[in-house]
Amino acid sequence: MSEFRQNFVTKEWVIVAPERGGRPDQMRRDAPERPSVPSFREDCPFCPGHEDRTPAPTHVWSAGGQWKVRVVPNKYAALSSEGGAQRVPAGPFLGAEGFGVAEVVIESPHHDETLEQMPLDQVEQVLRAFRTRHLQIAADPRINLVTIFRNHGPRAGTSLEHPHSQIIATPIVPPHVRNPWRCAEQHWDTWGRCAYCDMLHGELQERVRVISESERFVAFEPFASRTPFETRIYPKQHRASFSWSTDGELADFAEILKQTLLRLRIGLRQPDYNFVLRSAGSGDEDVRYLHWYLVIIPKITTPAGFEIGSGIYINVLPPEQAADFLRRTPVSD
Amino acid sequence: MSEFRQNFVTKEWVIVAPERGGRPDQMRRDAPERPSVPSFREDCPFCPGHEDRTPAPTHVWSAGGQWKVRVVPNKYAALSSEGGAQRVPAGPFLGAEGFGVAEVVIESPHHDETLEQMPLDQVEQVLRAFRTRHLQIAADPRINLVTIFRNHGPRAGTSLEHPHSQIIATPIVPPHVRNPWRCAEQHWDTWGRCAYCDMLHGELQERVRVISESERFVAFEPFASRTPFETRIYPKQHRASFSWSTDGELADFAEILKQTLLRLRIGLRQPDYNFVLRSAGSGDEDVRYLHWYLVIIPKITTPAGFEIGSGIYINVLPPEQAADFLRRTPVSD
Repeated sequence: MSEFRQNFVTKEWVIVAPERGGRPDQMRRDAPERPSVPSFREDCPFCPGHEDRTPAPTHVWSAGGQWKVRVVPNKYAALSSEGGAQRVPAGPFLGAEGFGVAEVVIESPHHDETLEQMPLDQVEQVLRAFRTRHLQIAADPRINLVTIFRNHGPRAGTSLEHPHSQIIATPIVPPHVRNPWRCAEQHWDTWGRCAYCDMLHGELQERVRVISESERFVAFEPFASRTPFETRIYPKQHRASFSWSTDGELADFAEILKQTLLRLRIGLRQPDYNFVLRSAGSGDEDVRYLHWYLVIIPKITTPAGFEIGSGIYINVLPPEQAADFLRRTPVSD
Repeated sequence: MSEFRQNFVTKEWVIVAPERGGRPDQMRRDAPERPSVPSFREDCPFCPGHEDRTPAPTHVWSAGGQWKVRVVPNKYAALSSEGGAQRVPAGPFLGAEGFGVAEVVIESPHHDETLEQMPLDQVEQVLRAFRTRHLQIAADPRINLVTIFRNHGPRAGTSLEHPHSQIIATPIVPPHVRNPWRCAEQHWDTWGRCAYCDMLHGELQERVRVISESERFVAFEPFASRTPFETRIYPKQHRASFSWSTDGELADFAEILKQTLLRLRIGLRQPDYNFVLRSAGSGDEDVRYLHWYLVIIPKITTPAGFEIGSGIYINVLPPEQAADFLRRTPVSD
């Protein structure tokens, strides 16, 4: 029997319809093995020795005389760092210059080293690079929103193998982002509590969707997961912006992120996935009703006409089953 | 140079970034030919003679002693027609029974006859089937939203070849649907005019994104197209619900729908696509601030982390170029 479930914060609904789907292990990628990837490629712009093929870096972390994490402006950026945020009428419509910041976070010098396979301190330095650039970019008064995300694999929108994440900062906060914030604000005004803290508390009470818990973080499959294995990592510490995370928090975050990605890698056989850091806008780093988190979406199903039309996702795998499967996935590579 | 553009009604933004993309003809499907499809398949539950493999029809149109359009309950429905709309607390969260209506509109007895290749009166009868079932289903007081949509091809979420559309009706109107309606309501309260009429008027004034115009309909690529070849068909007659369309309107709609799908089929080499009828909810058929329309989304690009995070789509093809390309595509098969 299927059921509707409501997202605790956004009030959007999903249909959990297990009878249409299958078992968690059937969500694995069909192909048993990824083709093996070399640790260096002559034609890769992100491999060491090819630094002249990217614009000058905005952030570098080095160790032992070699860069380990390198943030560079995106050479094929959809937005230009020249310009401003002013709106421009276009006949009856409204537009704006394509101003914004688009950067690539090269996560490792090794072409074949995925985020979950890196040494822990390397993951930590990637997160520190996120934080540094988030802080620096958000300080620009023209920038209102910094989106940090990762596309992994062709189904997730990238064909570039070299491990990398992206940062795109825009002068605009669209309704897609603002509407959930309004819901959280309303929750705050009604209950006097953070909606995300309440949601996390609910998940920790029920436990059935929790994958793992560390001192400062919880990884779980949300009650109203839109897709099989939609996975979230929430900090227990209430904090609106990722960019204000402490060093200690980032170290703990690195650990649970690496472990969660490893579970997905092993359990689902190296799925393509996106992840997104959802964090408060510029100037909102200290608002009380927001709470940053990470969402990981393995590309397993295809949203179709009903999802496009109604926004109601049909999820064929109950998140309780997904969480159970991931909990029991051994975390070793 | 890229630019931001705002959707006239929903206030969402897109980035139109032509320098990242290519020419319209590069958006064609890679494979030059679809494998040929037989006109009948023994294993197809929708082919004539297999009527016992589907539940009893809720609507049939016959001619010459043979059914031509057949609407049946979806055998693998995500929702059950038994139950109700009442919300059920699930611990700290909110759920509801999986109640709703899910039907399949079998558009033709011929396994290989796509919507754009059918005789015009057949397309008209498909639209009449949509209207009849929309009216009947929406009359149920437990139903608040009827979504009519079409998934065509594997990338659009279907592997079933036999030409069909779907109807899913839910007791729930989610924020994804309600929020744009609120925007339209606000436009009405501000300007005293329908936002969709104003948008259509703007497109007809500028003309550069119009593909074709008939007495009662306009097919165009919207100013803030989220993806290459996002195509819309708007009725000029202001009307909140598709289900209240007249016979004359449906005849005219059939013509422009067939023609527009043909342009996409020929221009883009039989792309996979979704289409969705966006129409007012039950009881809102007569509200003044809503206006039904059809949106067709060929599956050409993959939304990735940035789109998931920000809701801002990066569209690599300016809709002006897409419209020009489709206008110049000869409409014959």
